[in-house]
Amino acid sequence: MTGFVSLVGAGPGDPELLTLRAVNRLRDADLVLYDALVEQELLELAPRAKRFYVGKRAGRHSIDQDGIHALMIRAAKRGERVVRLKCGDPFVLGRGGEEALALEAAGIAYEVVPGLSSAIAAPALAGIPVTHRGLSAGFAVLSGHAESAFGSAIDSLAPGALTVVILMGLRTRAELARRLIARGWAADTPAAIVLGASHEGAARWLGTLATLADAAIDSELAGVIVVGTVVSLAARIANEHVPVAGSVEAVSR
Amino acid sequence: MTGFVSLVGAGPGDPELLTLRAVNRLRDADLVLYDALVEQELLELAPRAKRFYVGKRAGRHSIDQDGIHALMIRAAKRGERVVRLKCGDPFVLGRGGEEALALEAAGIAYEVVPGLSSAIAAPALAGIPVTHRGLSAGFAVLSGHAESAFGSAIDSLAPGALTVVILMGLRTRAELARRLIARGWAADTPAAIVLGASHEGAARWLGTLATLADAAIDSELAGVIVVGTVVSLAARIANEHVPVAGSVEAVSR
Repeated sequence: MTGFVSLVGAGPGDPELLTLRAVNRLRDADLVLYDALVEQELLELAPRAKRFYVGKRAGRHSIDQDGIHALMIRAAKRGERVVRLKCGDPFVLGRGGEEALALEAAGIAYEVVPGLSSAIAAPALAGIPVTHRGLSAGFAVLSGHAESAFGSAIDSLAPGALTVVILMGLRTRAELARRLIARGWAADTPAAIVLGASHEGAARWLGTLATLADAAIDSELAGVIVVGTVVSLAARIANEHVPVAGSVEAVSR
Repeated sequence: MTGFVSLVGAGPGDPELLTLRAVNRLRDADLVLYDALVEQELLELAPRAKRFYVGKRAGRHSIDQDGIHALMIRAAKRGERVVRLKCGDPFVLGRGGEEALALEAAGIAYEVVPGLSSAIAAPALAGIPVTHRGLSAGFAVLSGHAESAFGSAIDSLAPGALTVVILMGLRTRAELARRLIARGWAADTPAAIVLGASHEGAARWLGTLATLADAAIDSELAGVIVVGTVVSLAARIANEHVPVAGSVEAVSR
């Protein structure tokens, strides 16, 4: 009897945005270890499984990374089918690589099930294509988390060349905007914040780099920041999944 | 009777990597307009639909972009449910933004259904996390297509700061590698090519920027190029979905 671990991307939140493979793995799971921001609805797709919250939010850790590894390894050694359910994609700023290496080192069989990253899906659901002919031929995805060395990453981007998508950057958005402007980005570069894409109450804020710091947003929410001329398309590309009207959009006017 | 258009991301290829929403839209579709590289298996999920190939491969166009817009708009005006099925994610280097704007201009109701982009999923399936603590805090996604201005985008990236993922770059990989090295990237920076991720016969090539030009790869295949230190993890992170052994990997040794 050998166990198996699936590092599964849960996508941005809505169960309909799970992949079929993710649904299959949840259905068969004995144990689900899930992150912050994973909705209850997703967990109900794993009716047979024990479910443990192992999330981290804004510095408050319920369990450390080594503890997560130990839980996965122990359950797999007991012969269980483990789903490690991670927001977005497991390999985009989610420490999925570290979890894979820990499983590898312990000799546990595992797989990676990619999921929709909020870096692409959240802007798309809010009517913002991260690339667009004539506006942007590519995009960069960075972490705005205070722990990460976002300074050097953000400074590495020549002004205006690519769309910039920042995850986990709501709390540090004033500093992020300041650094981009100091690096030479135009202060009137369009910027957006997409909050809770694919969740109930999704909303978007539209402004510029100059006004990003002052956006009246609850920094404890999960949101994706997009900077670049493609943001100007949000006013022209509708999407039913993120309301055009809403308190946040109202704030931005 | 009003029609509706869904711009749907088909993901990297395997039907199990479709989202539930994509499956639902295909099931209900009257018309599916699909790209090159979309597998027959995916089309079988739309049993009621007429299916038209509107793809482009390596400069050979079956129909131009305006023709695709006209087909979608005409069918929606007839009251049909149209699925525009696009490889990967509709808004990542796929002209999805142009299609949304054309539908908007014609007053057609539509939505965007994000899909797994090969930019993230192909490396993940080959055991390469695009970010990894201590190696890379972010990544950039660019087009290597000869038509795009990849020169300026690729030159905008400071050497080594981010993982670089290049789509549609197999034919131009010698030029891409030359530009990165000229820009200051170390010639021994690890580089990978992931071919046909999630398709039958998926394979990966592992080498460096210096050897990328000489990789013995059929340039007519679809592949994703990854450049950066995270590629070194591919040797340590297994994934059953992309064979570790294979003709391409053999070539790279």
